[in-house]
Amino acid sequence: MRMSQMLLMTLRETPAEAEIPSHQLLLRAGYIRRIGSGLYAYLPMMWRVLNKVSQIIREEMDAAGAQECLLPQLQPSELWEESGRWETYTKAEGIMFSLIDRQERRLGLGPTHEEVITAIARDSIRSYRQLPQNLYQIQTKFRDEIRPRFGLMRGREFIMKDAYSFNADPESLKETYAAMSQAYENILRRCGLHFTAVEADSGAIGGSASQEFMVLAEAGEDEVLYTEDGKYAANVEKAVSLPTEAQPSPFSKYEKRETPNTATIATLCDFLSCDATTVVKNVLYEAVYDNGKQVLVLVSIRGDQDVNDVKLTNILSGMAGNYGAQALIGLNVPDADAQQKWATKPLPLGYIAPDLGDDYIQGGKGVEPKFLRLVDETAVNLQNFVTGSNENGYHVVGANWGEQFTLPETVVDVREAQAGDRATHDSQQILQSARGIEVGHIFQLGTKYSEAMGATYTSEQGQEVPLYMGCYGIGVSRLAQATVEQSYDKNGIIWPSAIAPYQVIITVPNVTDQQQSQVAETLYQDLLAAGIEVLLDDRDERAGVKFKDADLIGIPYRIVTGRSLANGNVEVIKRANLSSQEMPISDVVTTIRDWLQN
Amino acid sequence: MRMSQMLLMTLRETPAEAEIPSHQLLLRAGYIRRIGSGLYAYLPMMWRVLNKVSQIIREEMDAAGAQECLLPQLQPSELWEESGRWETYTKAEGIMFSLIDRQERRLGLGPTHEEVITAIARDSIRSYRQLPQNLYQIQTKFRDEIRPRFGLMRGREFIMKDAYSFNADPESLKETYAAMSQAYENILRRCGLHFTAVEADSGAIGGSASQEFMVLAEAGEDEVLYTEDGKYAANVEKAVSLPTEAQPSPFSKYEKRETPNTATIATLCDFLSCDATTVVKNVLYEAVYDNGKQVLVLVSIRGDQDVNDVKLTNILSGMAGNYGAQALIGLNVPDADAQQKWATKPLPLGYIAPDLGDDYIQGGKGVEPKFLRLVDETAVNLQNFVTGSNENGYHVVGANWGEQFTLPETVVDVREAQAGDRATHDSQQILQSARGIEVGHIFQLGTKYSEAMGATYTSEQGQEVPLYMGCYGIGVSRLAQATVEQSYDKNGIIWPSAIAPYQVIITVPNVTDQQQSQVAETLYQDLLAAGIEVLLDDRDERAGVKFKDADLIGIPYRIVTGRSLANGNVEVIKRANLSSQEMPISDVVTTIRDWLQN
Repeated sequence: MRMSQMLLMTLRETPAEAEIPSHQLLLRAGYIRRIGSGLYAYLPMMWRVLNKVSQIIREEMDAAGAQECLLPQLQPSELWEESGRWETYTKAEGIMFSLIDRQERRLGLGPTHEEVITAIARDSIRSYRQLPQNLYQIQTKFRDEIRPRFGLMRGREFIMKDAYSFNADPESLKETYAAMSQAYENILRRCGLHFTAVEADSGAIGGSASQEFMVLAEAGEDEVLYTEDGKYAANVEKAVSLPTEAQPSPFSKYEKRETPNTATIATLCDFLSCDATTVVKNVLYEAVYDNGKQVLVLVSIRGDQDVNDVKLTNILSGMAGNYGAQALIGLNVPDADAQQKWATKPLPLGYIAPDLGDDYIQGGKGVEPKFLRLVDETAVNLQNFVTGSNENGYHVVGANWGEQFTLPETVVDVREAQAGDRATHDSQQILQSARGIEVGHIFQLGTKYSEAMGATYTSEQGQEVPLYMGCYGIGVSRLAQATVEQSYDKNGIIWPSAIAPYQVIITVPNVTDQQQSQVAETLYQDLLAAGIEVLLDDRDERAGVKFKDADLIGIPYRIVTGRSLANGNVEVIKRANLSSQEMPISDVVTTIRDWLQN
Repeated sequence: MRMSQMLLMTLRETPAEAEIPSHQLLLRAGYIRRIGSGLYAYLPMMWRVLNKVSQIIREEMDAAGAQECLLPQLQPSELWEESGRWETYTKAEGIMFSLIDRQERRLGLGPTHEEVITAIARDSIRSYRQLPQNLYQIQTKFRDEIRPRFGLMRGREFIMKDAYSFNADPESLKETYAAMSQAYENILRRCGLHFTAVEADSGAIGGSASQEFMVLAEAGEDEVLYTEDGKYAANVEKAVSLPTEAQPSPFSKYEKRETPNTATIATLCDFLSCDATTVVKNVLYEAVYDNGKQVLVLVSIRGDQDVNDVKLTNILSGMAGNYGAQALIGLNVPDADAQQKWATKPLPLGYIAPDLGDDYIQGGKGVEPKFLRLVDETAVNLQNFVTGSNENGYHVVGANWGEQFTLPETVVDVREAQAGDRATHDSQQILQSARGIEVGHIFQLGTKYSEAMGATYTSEQGQEVPLYMGCYGIGVSRLAQATVEQSYDKNGIIWPSAIAPYQVIITVPNVTDQQQSQVAETLYQDLLAAGIEVLLDDRDERAGVKFKDADLIGIPYRIVTGRSLANGNVEVIKRANLSSQEMPISDVVTTIRDWLQN
């Protein structure tokens, strides 16, 4: 491509809208342009990068036996009502854009395609002889993000590869899942990324097991906990660990103490000269279900620990049936309004005991009082502990379960693992923390969707059995930006050859110099003929501008037809380390072809 | 691909939902599946067809110097308000799906991308030295159709290639437009289609000139008028012609006649024994503008002619400024309700005169009376004509403009050309009619969008000049189905080789016969090695089922490893004419490669 004919505008200034380097660089180098909040145009060079990523994905998916298709982006609400996710996706989490068509029917804009593909499998798969199947698509998807940001990292419209497998049984599902895990590793490696696979929470997608593929980078929105021995890595949302040992309590006698201004654990421990591990912390939540039922939830946990909201959400989702509901659609921390709703007198926040008296949970404003107590494993075995008294400015010390307080019936694991905890697989290993960008996520869904939507097959024994399903996603546009986040310097982007928009750029320092232009033109034609993708910077611009642009857009190899022509040479610069060498013109094509092949 | 591993389900019965052959066949052969009204999943074989069509388009667009990109599907309403199209697209025609996001901002789902691309050009194009530019994308688009039907022909979600050119002046625009016209002819020819390019109306897109590419087929929704000499072809919406000559009026004296039960032209002419060309027909419309203004429009036209709604819409759109509005958002034929709204007594429909008395247009129900008279060219020169009297059951005869009726000030061309009319370029040529499927449409937009949105460039003379724009669309998914509509027989689809999902299918009549399977497997590997796309029907099904499926899905060449193996031969069948020949196994690969190359 001749740059004089290409739509390209580079910026010298960093756009104010961009916070992280990859976003800034993609904007400055003219790869993307913002059209609205979380909405970006992929300009011609970006489109080439995305196509290369897609092509690598396609090759690995095809090699793993998957078949490409394309499903609709507009999805009838009826399908999502069958799976029970319409409310969760459009109301609670609200991440699905929805609209009403001219026939007054509701449609969603697909953030994911479990419902659509399950409807197709229900119609198309009849017999065990057709299994397994694995269908994938590379498609624009939509999420009405609360806070779109970081360019393509968290956009409202983005490109994803999503695949869905249909298997006869859990063993077959595990095989496909393993094959997909391997395909993902191949894809990320071929794209030139440093990444790690981690255990992950399955979230609203559901299912039993899931794994995320994290590109490690400071700008990552996710926290990863891992051990040095390489045997454990998990998203903090999912991570498990051994808590530190609890200290013995300094209190042996139960009594109520005046503890003014001790609404936080730190101030309390300081005031009472006790360790946080001797405290039972009691945290209130408000759970909202899809049938309108609301539940006040009190979680008791050891004072040095925090509640992991994702784990708590999963637990409360699993309890939906207890309240006659299908799904949890909200989990809030009660505020002043909520207090009025639940309690007839102000809740003693910061001083709450492991149980609430009736006077706090009589329900105001017509809310039927539903109250649920949970206790985290870390708080179960504490003795002579410190905890709240349900009275502002007072705590109790030397308390015990079974004496002053009943142990809640439901013991759960809701604590958040943290860096410094001991690993569960080997208590000598200490969890380390890193930031990651989630570019892939694979799930063993099991029969969640097939059962809800009646997608069954006839087994070899003649029985109707629900299909076992897996789903496998890669964020194509996010992956492309994550690559930049891992590979840039102060001058601009450094694309890995495999996904660079062009492999070579030929810079003509002075287009009015006939020799410079002629050599460049000849090399341009020769490189094209050798199947190498080349940009020819034939713009009538100053040499300095062209060099800056070349560094900014990050093409792996730059050829300069400048002063060295006097010796029959051109200058060849490797973008990765800006190393430069002179080379006879006649060697250029073979040398670059060799470099690209290695 | 081994069919035993492919997701495929063919149907023996014609699905009730499908009206036209191509839709029936794509469903029956398992290419597509309906997910909702106007929403289809493209299953693996369909996706291969669509990719081939896209690839041909890509090659021809690239060869014509266009650059591929991808623009957002979600579009902020602000951009459409800048161009003045938000109301028209979401309210009047209502073809754009729109939604409200969680920030309460309005977004549209792109049916077209003039606004987005103009916003990008406004930011990226500064100088004449950057021109011309031509950007294209291949993308899923959306239309909230009133009546989605015919499968992929008129879906609510479909794949389009759209390109937008930016030129320095009208001459440069014409060059790009001509290059695109040529590219479109190349694309359609390479896809194996019979088509014709026709003059077309530009509709809501706007601009001065436009051309549609019509695939000729009975099921086409468009009517094309053309002449045998090949010099004229136009969509009936746009077509011009010479009307037949008017007959002399049999009436020489003006008088009112009782004409009971003559509300139609046919009954009137029969009753009065006069020719329809001697009658002035008066037709009422109700125009609605985007500022709420409503106008009662009376069109006088020669009795044998019909009003072309598209032409009338264009005329009334052009008059929006007269009513302080930006756009026409509706054109209705007044019904009983409308009569109450406009008139204080019932309108004498079927007997309306070329003017309405004040008593008919005083405005009811608070509508401010706006009344507009238009006369078509065909009615201007009539003398002693027959027309309505504004009294039920009565007409007048022997009337003349300037005597009993004032000629309306605005003379227009709103008549619909029809088969049998004489052509304007040569009155010896008579217009013929054919049905067409519109698969492409190219427009010279001029400065409509660039002026509205302030997209200018600095000319060589240093002046800020609005960019001249063109836009160029091809319906990718529609084209694929149109191909089937042109190429099928009673047994199924007959794909042209260039866009067939696979080029060859190897049918093993009996998979338990080891020789049959072995020969098939060897041929399968050899054909793959030769770069030929092959399906291997290794399913454990009866031979008859396999032969029926092969014909139905329409792969160009079928190889059968059956009885002829006894002579060292296989049977090779051409799908197009079902001709069959035996061939030595060793000749198969070279023969098929030769066939495919020709």
